[in-house]
Amino acid sequence: MGGISAGSLAILLVGVSLMTYSSVHGGRILVFPVDGSHWLHMNLIVQSLHARGHEVSVVRSATSWYVQESASHYRSLTVSLPEAICIEEPDFFHSFLSEMLTIQKAGGALSFVRFYWKVLAALSRIHRQASLMGVEILQNKTLLQRLRNTQFDVVLVDPGLPVGALVAHELKLPTVFNVRWVTSGDGHFVVAPSPTSYVPVSGNAVSDRMTFAQRLKNTLYYFFNACFDKYIVCPHYDRIVEKFFGPDVTFYHLLQGADLWLIRVEFVFEFPRPTMPNVIYIGGFQCKPPKPLSPELEDFVLSSGEHGFVLMSLGTLVQCLPLEITSEITAAFAQIPQKVIWRHVGEQPKNLGNNTLLVKWLPQNDLLGHPKIKAFVGHGGTNGIYESIYHGVPMIGIPLLFDQFENILRLEERGAAKVVHATELTQQNFLEAVQEVLHDPSYRENMRRLSALHRDKPMHPLDTALFWIEFVMRHKGASHLRTESFRMPWYSYHSVDVGSLVLAVVGTLAGFVVGSVKFLCFSRKKNQSKIS
Amino acid sequence: MGGISAGSLAILLVGVSLMTYSSVHGGRILVFPVDGSHWLHMNLIVQSLHARGHEVSVVRSATSWYVQESASHYRSLTVSLPEAICIEEPDFFHSFLSEMLTIQKAGGALSFVRFYWKVLAALSRIHRQASLMGVEILQNKTLLQRLRNTQFDVVLVDPGLPVGALVAHELKLPTVFNVRWVTSGDGHFVVAPSPTSYVPVSGNAVSDRMTFAQRLKNTLYYFFNACFDKYIVCPHYDRIVEKFFGPDVTFYHLLQGADLWLIRVEFVFEFPRPTMPNVIYIGGFQCKPPKPLSPELEDFVLSSGEHGFVLMSLGTLVQCLPLEITSEITAAFAQIPQKVIWRHVGEQPKNLGNNTLLVKWLPQNDLLGHPKIKAFVGHGGTNGIYESIYHGVPMIGIPLLFDQFENILRLEERGAAKVVHATELTQQNFLEAVQEVLHDPSYRENMRRLSALHRDKPMHPLDTALFWIEFVMRHKGASHLRTESFRMPWYSYHSVDVGSLVLAVVGTLAGFVVGSVKFLCFSRKKNQSKIS
Repeated sequence: MGGISAGSLAILLVGVSLMTYSSVHGGRILVFPVDGSHWLHMNLIVQSLHARGHEVSVVRSATSWYVQESASHYRSLTVSLPEAICIEEPDFFHSFLSEMLTIQKAGGALSFVRFYWKVLAALSRIHRQASLMGVEILQNKTLLQRLRNTQFDVVLVDPGLPVGALVAHELKLPTVFNVRWVTSGDGHFVVAPSPTSYVPVSGNAVSDRMTFAQRLKNTLYYFFNACFDKYIVCPHYDRIVEKFFGPDVTFYHLLQGADLWLIRVEFVFEFPRPTMPNVIYIGGFQCKPPKPLSPELEDFVLSSGEHGFVLMSLGTLVQCLPLEITSEITAAFAQIPQKVIWRHVGEQPKNLGNNTLLVKWLPQNDLLGHPKIKAFVGHGGTNGIYESIYHGVPMIGIPLLFDQFENILRLEERGAAKVVHATELTQQNFLEAVQEVLHDPSYRENMRRLSALHRDKPMHPLDTALFWIEFVMRHKGASHLRTESFRMPWYSYHSVDVGSLVLAVVGTLAGFVVGSVKFLCFSRKKNQSKIS
Repeated sequence: MGGISAGSLAILLVGVSLMTYSSVHGGRILVFPVDGSHWLHMNLIVQSLHARGHEVSVVRSATSWYVQESASHYRSLTVSLPEAICIEEPDFFHSFLSEMLTIQKAGGALSFVRFYWKVLAALSRIHRQASLMGVEILQNKTLLQRLRNTQFDVVLVDPGLPVGALVAHELKLPTVFNVRWVTSGDGHFVVAPSPTSYVPVSGNAVSDRMTFAQRLKNTLYYFFNACFDKYIVCPHYDRIVEKFFGPDVTFYHLLQGADLWLIRVEFVFEFPRPTMPNVIYIGGFQCKPPKPLSPELEDFVLSSGEHGFVLMSLGTLVQCLPLEITSEITAAFAQIPQKVIWRHVGEQPKNLGNNTLLVKWLPQNDLLGHPKIKAFVGHGGTNGIYESIYHGVPMIGIPLLFDQFENILRLEERGAAKVVHATELTQQNFLEAVQEVLHDPSYRENMRRLSALHRDKPMHPLDTALFWIEFVMRHKGASHLRTESFRMPWYSYHSVDVGSLVLAVVGTLAGFVVGSVKFLCFSRKKNQSKIS
C-alpha cells in the first residue's frame, strides 16, 4: 500500500526542481490525465501551462505507459496500486483489437452483443483500476495534507477517468475538465440538454438528421448508456464518494459541478447541439503549422512528382492491423501512382509496392501540412481528424474501436472522407475508396471548406484553453457560468411535479364541467319524462 | 404608397457618398434596426462596421425618432408607411408609463390583467406597424431588384421587429441577429432548449432557483407567452410570409434559421442556461473607459469631497417620472451628504436640495467611470446595467416597464443592487435603499466582483460582434453552427413518436406476460380443483 512513490513525492512536495517559475504570475495546477492518446492532448496543455510560468504536478499510476515519471515541464506524483491491471500496455489494445475484429467478422446479432460485452468489460476494468487509484489517494491523509499545503489553484482533470474530480472535491479546489468522454459517453450528455431526436448518442454512428428507425435506435442507445453508466461504471466511484464524503454527496454531482468543461471538439467536426455557458470548445487545439521534413523524407515525398503522396497512420493505441488486412491494403497501395508513407509496426506484409515506405514513426503534422499530400488514411481518432481538417487533407477512414466510427462519420457526412470498415476491407474496395478520394475533387474542396471554417477563430483553441484555465485560477472558479439545476430532483428538473398539478387542475375542472353538463341533461330528461 | 423616399434610395442605389470604403476588405451590410434604445446599441455596431471599411445601409421608417435619415457612417433607406402609428415618439412612452403606473398603483388581480393587457396591446400595435413596413418592402419589386443588385453580404437584424429576417429570406442572404428580444420574449426561447424549471421566462422576474410556486408561475408564463406569440404577434408576419413566400415557409422557421444570434447579454448578468453554438454573447459591447468630464461637471463632482456623488438617470424612453414620485426622490436626496447628478426632463420638483444638480443630458459612461461615484440610480435598462457592471458601481433600481423588472432582479440576486418599485416609492424607503447601498460595503464589493468577471474576456464584446458578423460575410453564412432540428415536427423533436412506440411495445409485452401468468395460475387452480 502506501501508494505514492517516495521519489516523486519528494519532487512534488519539497519542491526541488530545475524549472524556473515566475513567482508572481505563476500558479499551481494539479493534473489528473488519462493515459494513451488522451495524454498526448493533455501533455500539450501541460507544456503550455509550464511555458506560461505555472507549476504543474501530474498524477500518474506506477504502471503508466505514456506519462513519464520525470519530465522537465511537470512534477510527477506516482501512485502505486495494490493490484496493477496494466491496461495501458500497448499489447493490451493490440490483442483487444484482434479479438474485436474477429467478433465483428463473425457477424449476426450475437456478434453485436459479444462486441459490446467486450467493450463494456474493458471499460469496467479500466474504471475499476482508476477507482483504486482514487482510494489510494483519498485514504492517504499525509499525502492529502501535503497536497493542501501545496495550495493548488485549480485541478485539471480528464474525466474519462474522473478520480481527479473526487480529489478536487476533497481539496475544495475549482475543477477544469479537459474532456471529450466521461463515464456515460460524450461529456455533453452530463452537462447540457441532449434531445435524442437530433443529438446522436455516444456509440451510435448516425448523423443529426435521423430517420424514425435511427431515432428509435438512438433513444435505445441513450437508455443503454445510462444503464451501463448507472450500474457498471458509477458504482466504482459511488463507493468511494460514500466512504469518503458521506451520503450527502453524489458522484454524478461532482462531475456536473466542474467549473469549466474544455471540450475537445468544435462544430466544424461536431453536429450542432445544445450546449452550456461553462462549455468551452477547444477542438483542434493540437493543430499547428508544419515544420520542414527530414532530408530523406522530403526526398521521398518530392519523388512523387505530380501525383503527390498518401499518408497512412492508425494512431497511438493500435499500431498495426492483423496481417490479412494489411496485405489487402498493401496490394491496393501498390496499384496507385502516388507514393505512400505508412506508419507500420509489426509484421511487414510481403507484397509491398515500390511506391510504399513503411516507417515506425513519422512526423504526422508535418506530412499532413506538406503541399504534396493528396490523402490521409487514418483510424478516425480526433487527433488525426483535426490535423486533417487543419491542413485540409481529405481522409479515408478505417475506424477500429470506440468513438472512431462516429468520429469519421462526421467527416463523411460533410463529404470530406470515405469510410472502409476493417472487417469488410478488401484490396478492391480499399483501392476504390482511395481512388475516389484522390480523383473526385469534392472531397478535397469540402475538406478545404472545413479547414477555412476551422481556422477562422478569434483565438487559437490552445490559447482559448489556457485563457480559461487561468480564468478559473484568477477568479477561484467560474460558478457564474455553471447552472446548479442538476441539484434539483429529476421530477422538478423535468417539471413533472408542475405538469402533474396543472393536469390535475385541468382534469378536475373538465370533470366538473362534464359532470355539471351531464347532471343538467339528466335533470332535463327527468323533468321532460315527468312532464310527458 | 411607394414606400421608399426617393432621396435615400438614390443615396443607397446610385452610390454617391462622401464615405471612403476599402474596396478590397469592405463588404456590404443591410441593417434592420429597432428604434429607441435598441438603435443606440445597433448604431454602435454600425459605426464600428463603417470604421472597418464596410458599406452599411440602414432601413428606417419615415417617422423614425432616433434613426437619422442622413449620417456619415451609413446610408439610410427610408420606408414611408401608409398608416403612420408613430409609436417611437417620446411622448408615446411617457404617457404609456403614466398610465401603467396608475394601473399598478390601483393593485389587485384586475390591475394585473389590465397591466398586461396594456403591454400586449402596445406590443401588438408595434408589430402591426413593423409588419406594414415588411409589406411595403416586399411588394416593391423595383426596390427588391435594386437591393439584389447591391449584392449585400449579410443582413443584420434586430429581431425585436423581425421584418429584416423576411427581407433576408427574399434576398437569399445570410442573417445575423443583434438581439435580446424576439416576438416571444427573450431570443433564447426561440433558439435554445429552455427548461422552465430553472430558466426564468420573459416577463417573470424570478431567479434561476425557484420554489414550487415560482416554477408553476414560470410554466404558466411560458404558455401565456407562447399563446400571445402565436395568436397576437405572429399572425402579423404569418400573413406576409404566406403572401410572399407561399405555404412551405413559416415565419417562425425564418426566425430560427438565422445564421448567428449576437445576444446582448452574458453570464455575469444572465443566469446560466442552455445555449446553442450559433449564439454569441456580446453583453457589455457598449462599455468603454470614461473620458474626462467637462470642467463644470468635474468641479461639481469634486466638490462632493470624501462623500462622493450619486448618479440618477432613467434611460432613453422614459425621461422623467410623475411629479409625485420625483418629489419623494428629491426629498430623499436632500438628506444625504453625497452630491447628486440627475438626468431630468420635465417639471422640476420644488423641494430640490442644494446637493442635487438636474441636467437634461449627462455623459453617463464618463460619470459612471469617475472615481468619486458611489452609486447609480437607474431604471434597469441593460445599457445602464452593463455600464454599471463595467465600472463596478452598485445600483438602486427603479424598474418601470418591460424587461426592467427582471434585469434589475439579476443584479439584486448577485447582491449588487437594491430595488425600489415606483408604485411603492416613498421618501423613506427610497432614502433607506440609497443609504443601504452607500454604506453596506457588500454592494460595492459584489459589483466589483461582477466587474472583474465581466472584463476578463479574451476579446472585447464589440470586437466579438464584429468578428462574427464578418465571419458570416467571409463564409456566406454559418450553417455549421445552426441546428436544423427546428424543421422536425414537434412530436418528432420531442420524441413523442419514439416514446409512444416504446411504451406500446413495453405495454404489449407486459400485457402478454401478465396474461400468461394469469392463464397459468388459472390452469393450475382448475387442475387443482379437478384433482381435489
